[in-house]
Amino acid sequence: VPSEFDTDTAVTPTEDGHYAASFSAGWNIGDKPNGGYVLATAVRAMHTELLAATHGAHSDPFTVTAHYLRPCEPGPVDITVELIRVGRLMATIQASVAQGGKERVRSLATFGNFDAITGPTTVTATPPDLPSPDVCLERPPFGEGNTSLPNIQARLVTRLHPTTGWVVGRPSGHASVSGWLGFADGRAPDTLALPLFADAFAPAVFELLANSAWVPTVELTVHVRARPAPGLLASRFATTNLIDGLLDEEGELWDSTGRLVAQSRQLAMLISAP
Amino acid sequence: VPSEFDTDTAVTPTEDGHYAASFSAGWNIGDKPNGGYVLATAVRAMHTELLAATHGAHSDPFTVTAHYLRPCEPGPVDITVELIRVGRLMATIQASVAQGGKERVRSLATFGNFDAITGPTTVTATPPDLPSPDVCLERPPFGEGNTSLPNIQARLVTRLHPTTGWVVGRPSGHASVSGWLGFADGRAPDTLALPLFADAFAPAVFELLANSAWVPTVELTVHVRARPAPGLLASRFATTNLIDGLLDEEGELWDSTGRLVAQSRQLAMLISAP
Repeated sequence: VPSEFDTDTAVTPTEDGHYAASFSAGWNIGDKPNGGYVLATAVRAMHTELLAATHGAHSDPFTVTAHYLRPCEPGPVDITVELIRVGRLMATIQASVAQGGKERVRSLATFGNFDAITGPTTVTATPPDLPSPDVCLERPPFGEGNTSLPNIQARLVTRLHPTTGWVVGRPSGHASVSGWLGFADGRAPDTLALPLFADAFAPAVFELLANSAWVPTVELTVHVRARPAPGLLASRFATTNLIDGLLDEEGELWDSTGRLVAQSRQLAMLISAP
Repeated sequence: VPSEFDTDTAVTPTEDGHYAASFSAGWNIGDKPNGGYVLATAVRAMHTELLAATHGAHSDPFTVTAHYLRPCEPGPVDITVELIRVGRLMATIQASVAQGGKERVRSLATFGNFDAITGPTTVTATPPDLPSPDVCLERPPFGEGNTSLPNIQARLVTRLHPTTGWVVGRPSGHASVSGWLGFADGRAPDTLALPLFADAFAPAVFELLANSAWVPTVELTVHVRARPAPGLLASRFATTNLIDGLLDEEGELWDSTGRLVAQSRQLAMLISAP
């Protein structure tokens, strides 16, 4: 049985450089598909194009950037890809995600192959210290008075560290959150899924301002650093600088063997809830 | 008198969506133009295109990403820009930098205007603690046995913190460096110059491995957070995770009033010197 993630990010080649996809409402936050899910679908199209062009030589997305132009909607999607350069170690490719004739997301990515790179390793970041998932917290509904969970919650395992303050209405004042992430249907994470997980957690800035704001992403860059082992990912997200309503958010994803598998940074905009 | 930076990043519209420029050898590291200088020239072309399209409404590059496909050379450049979307608060645009008919750099940027955005501010990062520039260190020649400074050193003020170990052949083992940055001819920094400064410092990884390696950028993203005041910038760059020869480098640039003006992150590749 294919996983929900694989089914819902599937792409079908139409004409040269074009792929058809369909955004499932199952990955919505409110009535819009989650930005990480949208990016993962674009990454799938770029991966498929590269697979054909390079016979699988460049199968891991090393660095992926997306600029979010307009919100997406559930339903049909046209993804245009442009293969920019294929080198020996890396290949660069672009994707444009359109719906109803309007471009929604522009993405630029460089792929490589973790089997093909060698060199020294010195990791100084450390994984978050998380208690077991069953004592961590579920994400509560978004916004005051709202009781329904976003659809995406049914597709994902997200368990926040039990000290996460905003969940119980007491933001810590320190814009850092951590917790577990995975697919609800048990699909193992891989390098194609990491761009989704880099944008699937509740915003760290909720620890400053409670969950009263909408925080749309302007730009998201994900560096995939290794292929994850099966199991839940341990994650940490932090906002360091909120300036005039614009904010950065840095993320780290660690696999079940304690290996750093992705680093992310986004620029987002704070918009007060209506 | 126009500054060296303004002269050497000047762009001239040719046909629709195309700009001519010329990379000066004055910004070389070795025999190749510095990646930050190349990006700043692309940003100039995008800025010029947007100035015409939006009458100056979106004049600050909020977030800029570049994928480095091939090294550039001093000499003529053709920059193709594509205006992707102009919104009320932000506009997204792409630039492709080509020389000799070959694309060298692909860049994607979202511009806005710092006068037009409002919202809360909470900055938790702190500026580096730097002694005055005259007691800081000049960057020494690159590589063992090499005695010539890169050309770019004559265009920039770069003063490393006096404790920087690799400069005196004793890398600290902790991949973090700090120091002052500015233009040698006294030009004040602005939001168009920050992408250059985000890639103009010696790699932080030299504190792990000495200056024995070449560290070409795969991808660089710069978040410009505010317009800098005149004066030297205080900077801090750190590599957190070197994995199989691929490394991240995070940067911060602070203006002379102690304000955070840019955050950067790049993915780079370690290549041993010949």
